[in-house]
Amino acid sequence: MTGRRLRVAITVGDPGGIGPEVAVKALRLGPLPGDALPVLIGGLGPCRRAGWVPSASWTIRPPGHLPADDPGPASCDGWAVEIDPDPDAPRPAAVDPSNGRSALRYIDYALRLVQDGAVDAIVTGPVSKEAIDRSGTPFTGHTEHLAAAAHVRHPVMLCVAGPLRVAFVTSHIALRKVPGTVTTARIVETAAIAAEGLRTGFGLESPRIAVCALNPHAGEGGKFGREDRDVVAPAIARLRERGIACDGPVPGDAVFRDASAGRWDAVVALYHDQGMIPIKAAWEAGPVNMTLGLPFIRTSPAHGTAFDRAGRDTADPRPTRRAIEIAAAAALRRRGLPQPTLF
Amino acid sequence: MTGRRLRVAITVGDPGGIGPEVAVKALRLGPLPGDALPVLIGGLGPCRRAGWVPSASWTIRPPGHLPADDPGPASCDGWAVEIDPDPDAPRPAAVDPSNGRSALRYIDYALRLVQDGAVDAIVTGPVSKEAIDRSGTPFTGHTEHLAAAAHVRHPVMLCVAGPLRVAFVTSHIALRKVPGTVTTARIVETAAIAAEGLRTGFGLESPRIAVCALNPHAGEGGKFGREDRDVVAPAIARLRERGIACDGPVPGDAVFRDASAGRWDAVVALYHDQGMIPIKAAWEAGPVNMTLGLPFIRTSPAHGTAFDRAGRDTADPRPTRRAIEIAAAAALRRRGLPQPTLF
Repeated sequence: MTGRRLRVAITVGDPGGIGPEVAVKALRLGPLPGDALPVLIGGLGPCRRAGWVPSASWTIRPPGHLPADDPGPASCDGWAVEIDPDPDAPRPAAVDPSNGRSALRYIDYALRLVQDGAVDAIVTGPVSKEAIDRSGTPFTGHTEHLAAAAHVRHPVMLCVAGPLRVAFVTSHIALRKVPGTVTTARIVETAAIAAEGLRTGFGLESPRIAVCALNPHAGEGGKFGREDRDVVAPAIARLRERGIACDGPVPGDAVFRDASAGRWDAVVALYHDQGMIPIKAAWEAGPVNMTLGLPFIRTSPAHGTAFDRAGRDTADPRPTRRAIEIAAAAALRRRGLPQPTLF
Repeated sequence: MTGRRLRVAITVGDPGGIGPEVAVKALRLGPLPGDALPVLIGGLGPCRRAGWVPSASWTIRPPGHLPADDPGPASCDGWAVEIDPDPDAPRPAAVDPSNGRSALRYIDYALRLVQDGAVDAIVTGPVSKEAIDRSGTPFTGHTEHLAAAAHVRHPVMLCVAGPLRVAFVTSHIALRKVPGTVTTARIVETAAIAAEGLRTGFGLESPRIAVCALNPHAGEGGKFGREDRDVVAPAIARLRERGIACDGPVPGDAVFRDASAGRWDAVVALYHDQGMIPIKAAWEAGPVNMTLGLPFIRTSPAHGTAFDRAGRDTADPRPTRRAIEIAAAAALRRRGLPQPTLF
């Protein structure tokens, strides 16, 4: 199987959002690292409406079995698998249960492919959690859905933007709940999974990690909260005992500049905005999410469905392109093949 | 009095930190906007050790009365006022009560000058709160100290970095206390003071303001906390009733990119890291703090004493230079004079 051509599955996400457009545009930006074969998964109507005109060397495949060991034609530009063919009329560019149901089917098909070894990595397009929820399947996010399917209890979200890599201890919870949810054990687990992900996904043998402080100026000796001393500092000590090169607690407003300059390979953020603000600020770098701790490779562009901008041909494909490149590069590494210089 | 030359007082901050170095270097970067006269305040020993060689047209003045209406020589490069002359030996580059006592004297002298109308604005160098505290005067920060002296209850910190201006509802408090401290009334007050500061200090007649959300994705309809609906949204409504152009709650990871692109003139952040992370990321722009709501103009570079880097001649004077320029520009505006294009 490892002799066959590398394959990266790309789901288009919610068919009413900008997902189909950014997927199509991202694939137009050139061949993938390692000459990986893109496997586009979704309703192809939205892709066509977004300007997708598959060349003769694209293959439209039925949504059934995709053989893991089929070498496929070497010169093929890509495969497309149509799930839930849609009518000619555009899907509603809004939270819509029918779109949600389709988006979930794309994910589940891609999941089966990667679990069967039929593809080497998956890149997931933006979905509306609310649309999937309303379609009848409780859904809190891609990450949780994929982790449950893979029986992984604590997946870790790693966001990548240019030189910045940020892993999250907590993410989609109220700020009020953050101080009580961030424990020493969770910090240790997150940082350890991040370190392992940097080794296997990015080829960094001894990654250097910074853990953010919870409070301003790391609490300034306890004046602005004791968690940095009582919760974060012990986590740093334990991580060092485990041989992980780790610094912290580093004040949130100081850590990202130094990390961008190369002082650390990744930053562990304690809550959503702390890590997402610098990631989104580096928009030009096409921010990408990567889920660590899963038995397979999964990335996605770090943006939403942007229903308000769908169908206007103004969406930026760079995050999706980076997501595909990072996934392909990690897949090459898993096979022990040399990686292209992307980063 | 308004006929005399504009004057900007610059305190060197803690004499053991990088403050004297950045003050001296910032003044070397050229004449000030409006040909303002710099009035350097501090122990001049550290300034000399940082390379300050006053030209013949610098005047060393005694630390007594500085007449408000003295026109001063037009061609003068600057005045220096030595407070607490220090021995030839360098001051300790560490938290030191003697340094703290001196730093506080510089501030209090500058405060007297600006309250007497002897200078038009003050720029304060970085101090160690702990050093001042240990010298015997309880001290939580420049802002609080100056506000108390001016009998102002709620000063507002505005941080400026390139195109980004951020005002803070809370700042030096534990993250745990943020959700309980951010009230509708405090958001309204902060945004209103920020709007007024943008009018008087920056000449923006109808400033457009964005207020950050507290929770990820503004709580996503209440899934991640209810404060954005219950506390932030009513503040936006009240501000609009008062005629202030205001949007929000805008998710923290989305607001700063659009603000940098010019969609808003200022962002109101609800807590320290939310606003300081993007400000510090824009380091090249020389981040500056400005205190709004005081009866006088006060700015400072947005960095600390950096004791570990003192005396190495590696400190970056750009934040101090910007702080002086912004203060001088705001002083020109108060006099009704045309401002140079700085921003």
